[in-house]
Amino acid sequence: MTRKVEVAIIGAGTAGLTAMSQIKQAGKDFVLINGGHLGTTCARVGCMPSKALIQVAEDFHRRKILKRHHILGGENLSIDLPGVMEHVQDLRDIFVDRVLQGSTDNMGDELIEGYASFVDPHTLRVNDETIEAERIVIAAGSTPIFPDAWKAFGDRVVTTDEFFELETLPKSLAVIGLGVIGLELGQALARLGIDVTGIDTLERISGLTDPVVNAEAISVIGEEFPLWLGHPAEIEAGEDGLLRVSAGEQSVTVEKVLVSMGRRPYLDHLKLENAGVPLDARGLPTYDPETMQVGDSHIYIAGDVDGDAPILHEAGDEGRIAGYNAARGSAERFIRKTMLAITFCEPNIVNVGRCWSALEADPDVVAAEMPMGPVGRALIMAKNKGVIRVYAHKQTGRLLGGALFAAKGEGLGHLLAWAIQQNLTVFDTLNLPFYHPTLEEALQGALQRLVAKLEIQPDAPVGLKRKTL
Amino acid sequence: MTRKVEVAIIGAGTAGLTAMSQIKQAGKDFVLINGGHLGTTCARVGCMPSKALIQVAEDFHRRKILKRHHILGGENLSIDLPGVMEHVQDLRDIFVDRVLQGSTDNMGDELIEGYASFVDPHTLRVNDETIEAERIVIAAGSTPIFPDAWKAFGDRVVTTDEFFELETLPKSLAVIGLGVIGLELGQALARLGIDVTGIDTLERISGLTDPVVNAEAISVIGEEFPLWLGHPAEIEAGEDGLLRVSAGEQSVTVEKVLVSMGRRPYLDHLKLENAGVPLDARGLPTYDPETMQVGDSHIYIAGDVDGDAPILHEAGDEGRIAGYNAARGSAERFIRKTMLAITFCEPNIVNVGRCWSALEADPDVVAAEMPMGPVGRALIMAKNKGVIRVYAHKQTGRLLGGALFAAKGEGLGHLLAWAIQQNLTVFDTLNLPFYHPTLEEALQGALQRLVAKLEIQPDAPVGLKRKTL
Repeated sequence: MTRKVEVAIIGAGTAGLTAMSQIKQAGKDFVLINGGHLGTTCARVGCMPSKALIQVAEDFHRRKILKRHHILGGENLSIDLPGVMEHVQDLRDIFVDRVLQGSTDNMGDELIEGYASFVDPHTLRVNDETIEAERIVIAAGSTPIFPDAWKAFGDRVVTTDEFFELETLPKSLAVIGLGVIGLELGQALARLGIDVTGIDTLERISGLTDPVVNAEAISVIGEEFPLWLGHPAEIEAGEDGLLRVSAGEQSVTVEKVLVSMGRRPYLDHLKLENAGVPLDARGLPTYDPETMQVGDSHIYIAGDVDGDAPILHEAGDEGRIAGYNAARGSAERFIRKTMLAITFCEPNIVNVGRCWSALEADPDVVAAEMPMGPVGRALIMAKNKGVIRVYAHKQTGRLLGGALFAAKGEGLGHLLAWAIQQNLTVFDTLNLPFYHPTLEEALQGALQRLVAKLEIQPDAPVGLKRKTL
Repeated sequence: MTRKVEVAIIGAGTAGLTAMSQIKQAGKDFVLINGGHLGTTCARVGCMPSKALIQVAEDFHRRKILKRHHILGGENLSIDLPGVMEHVQDLRDIFVDRVLQGSTDNMGDELIEGYASFVDPHTLRVNDETIEAERIVIAAGSTPIFPDAWKAFGDRVVTTDEFFELETLPKSLAVIGLGVIGLELGQALARLGIDVTGIDTLERISGLTDPVVNAEAISVIGEEFPLWLGHPAEIEAGEDGLLRVSAGEQSVTVEKVLVSMGRRPYLDHLKLENAGVPLDARGLPTYDPETMQVGDSHIYIAGDVDGDAPILHEAGDEGRIAGYNAARGSAERFIRKTMLAITFCEPNIVNVGRCWSALEADPDVVAAEMPMGPVGRALIMAKNKGVIRVYAHKQTGRLLGGALFAAKGEGLGHLLAWAIQQNLTVFDTLNLPFYHPTLEEALQGALQRLVAKLEIQPDAPVGLKRKTL
C-alpha cells in the first residue's frame, strides 16, 4: 500500500529537523525518513565532541603558561587519555540526547527509519514501504571522504565517524587533510601529548586563501606539530602493525591515521536519477540558494547534501527555507547570511564575508592587517600570536571580508560578519564601541589601518560621527 | 612673563592625550599640563594592571576544573604571590612605557609638569609659570574616593593608587565598594587564596540595575567570597596591627582594606571658581556631551573629570571631540556611542544600552532572559553559570539594552551594543549569523525568547529575511 503525504523529508539531521519544524508550523502532514543513526552530524561526530576534546586539550596546554604567571607545579600535570575520551563521549551523549528529545523521540509513525530512494519524482521507497509525496525535502547529509584503497588498513585508519568512539588515544597519529576538523583535532591531539603529523595536498590550511593569515597560521600551528603541505599522503603497512605515512619526501610511522579530507554529499541510496531533476557535474541537484528549490520542481534541498557551506547555522537556514517553501509549494526568496566560517583551533581561524581569492584581482579592493603582538589584552592573556586582515572597497570604504588568526577570533568574526552583512563601511564600523582592554581592539586596529588605504576620508575624526540635525 | 598659546590642555591622561592629537592635527600651538605621574589611569592603576592580576587568578582558579577534564595533579598547583605582583608590575610598566613613548616622551616644552589653576577664564598658573590660552581643555582625570577618617589607618587601607605597588598580597582583605574595580580585584584575590570579604552599601553589584542578572551574579560570585550588601562599612583598629571591618551585623578581622568606592573628578588644584563657567551642584562644569563645550565658553572638558562614564573608549571620544572643537573654537556636534560597560570578573558582568532602571516603568518595554546553563559550548567550557537579559520596545521590536552575566560577556556585549547603536530590531539581529557552537548562541537564545513577548511578528521565519526585489 502506498502512503500519501504532503511533504516527505529525507534526513533527520540539522537541516531536515529544521525543515520539519516549518512544515509542522504550517500544519502539513509529512513523514521524516532517516537512514543510519539518529542525532545530527554536529552532535554525534562533528561540532560538539570536537569542541569537548579541544577544551580539554586547551586546558592541558595552558600548563605551559603557568610558570609565567607564577603558578607552581604545572610541569607535574599529566593527562588520563582514556578518561578524556570518556569525558568527550559523555558530553557527546548529552548533546545527542538533547537533539533527540527535542525532535524524533516519541514521534510515532511520522518517523521512518531507513534509507529513502526515489522511484519517480513523487515516489520514495523506504525499506518495504512506498511513500507518495506532493513535495520532497532532500536533507540526506554528508559522509566523510575516504579513499577506497585505505579501507584495507581496517580500524587503524579512521574518520570522525569512528574517532570519537575510541576508548583511548594512540601514541602517534597522522592527520590527512588540514581543513576545519583536521586542524582542530590535530592540534588538540598534539596538545594532549600524541605525536601528531599533519598532511595536506594544499599549501594552505583551514580554507584560508589569505596569504598573510595563512602563512602566520602555518608558522604558529606548525610549532605545535609538523605540517607537511603540498603533497598528497600515501599510507603503507609498516612493521608491528604500524602504518607508514608518506607525503613528498617525508614519511612517518604511526599507530593510527585520521582521514579528514572533507565530507561529500551523501547521495548513496537516493537514486537521484529517478527524481527527474537537473543534476550538475558532481551529480548534485542544481538549486537556488535563496529558495532551496531544485530547478523549478516540487523538490527542495537543504544542508550538507547540497555541497555548499557545511556549517550548522547555514544548514539551519537552508532547512528553514526549504521547509517553508516545501510546506507551501512556493519559491519564496530569503536573504542568505554573510559567510562566517570558524576553525576552533587556537588561535581561532576565521573566514568572514568574501574570501581573498575572490577579491585579490580587483584593483578597487584594499586590505590591511593587524598583528596580535601589540594588542595589550592579548599580551596579558599570553595569547598574542596571530594576525587579522580585513578587506574593503577602496572608493566607498565598504567592508567586504576578512581572515582572522586570533585568540577569541570566534567573537571577532561575529562582529566583522555583522558589520559586513549590514553593508557598513570601515568608518561606520569604527564608530561603534570597542571596549578597552579587549581583543576586539585588534579588529579596531585592523580597521584603523585600513582607513589609510581608502580613497575617501571622513568629515570627522575617525571613530566619531558628526551629528546632522 | 606670560606664555601665550592657542590651546592649553590640562591633564595628560587618555582624554588629554586624545585631545592633543586632534589639536596637533589641526596645526595649533598648545601646551599640555600634567600634575602628578605621567601615564594614564588606565595603564598605571586601572584597566591594565587589574587585567594582568585577573588573568593570573583565572589561570590559577582553572585548576578546579582540571579533574573534570581528566588532567591530573591540579590539586598540587600553588601560587607565588610576590611573583604574581612582580608579574603584574612588569606588565604594568610595559603598558605605561607604551603610553609615554607614544605621547609625552621627548615632547619638549609643550609639556609642563605641574598642577594647573585658573587665574581667570583665559589664564592658568602652573608652578611659577603663567599661561594665557585662547581655548582650554580640562582633562584633569579622577582620583579614588577615600573617606578622610580612614587615613588614620595608614598603608593598611589602600586604594588602587597603592594596591598595584604592593610587594606581596595580604592573607586577608576586605574590599569596600563592589563596583567594577572592587568586584574584579575582590574575585581575583579570592581566587589567589586571599581571604576576601566584599562589602557594599547597595544591594547590587557592578552597577547592575537588572534584578534578575544582579541576583544571579550575587549568587554565583558570592560562592567565591562573601558579599555583604546593604550596609555601610566601618573600620576600627584590631589586635596585632589588624583591622576590624564591620557592616550591619557582620564583622571580620583583616590585614588590609581595599577601598574601591569609585573615583571622583579631580578638581583639587583647578580653582574652577576663577574659570568663569557654570558649575553644577557637585561643583562640576556643566557641558554638552555632544560638543564637550562648557556652557558657551572657550573651555572644553573631557574624560573622568566630567563625572560621566569613566570608561576608556568614552574618555577617548570625549578627548577627540573636545580637542576637535578646542582646536577650532567650534561647537560641532558628534554622536555618542551606545553605552557599553564591562566588569571583567568571571563570568563577565556587562551593561549595554539603556539600563533596566530607566526602562522598567515603561509599559512598552519587554524583557527576556536566557540562562547560560543550557548553552552547549558553555557546558563544554565548564562556564555555564550566568544569565543574559535583553530589553526591547514591544511594538517595534527595537532593541534598547541588556545586562549580561556570562562567560565571554565582553564579546557578547559588543555584539549587543553594535546592534543597539544601529537601531536594529530583535528580528534584524536574529537575521545575522550566530555560529555553532559558540557562546554567541546564548545571546541568540535571549533574543529568540524576546520575540515571543513582542506585539509584532515578522513575515518570515525568525532568523530569515524575505528578499524583496
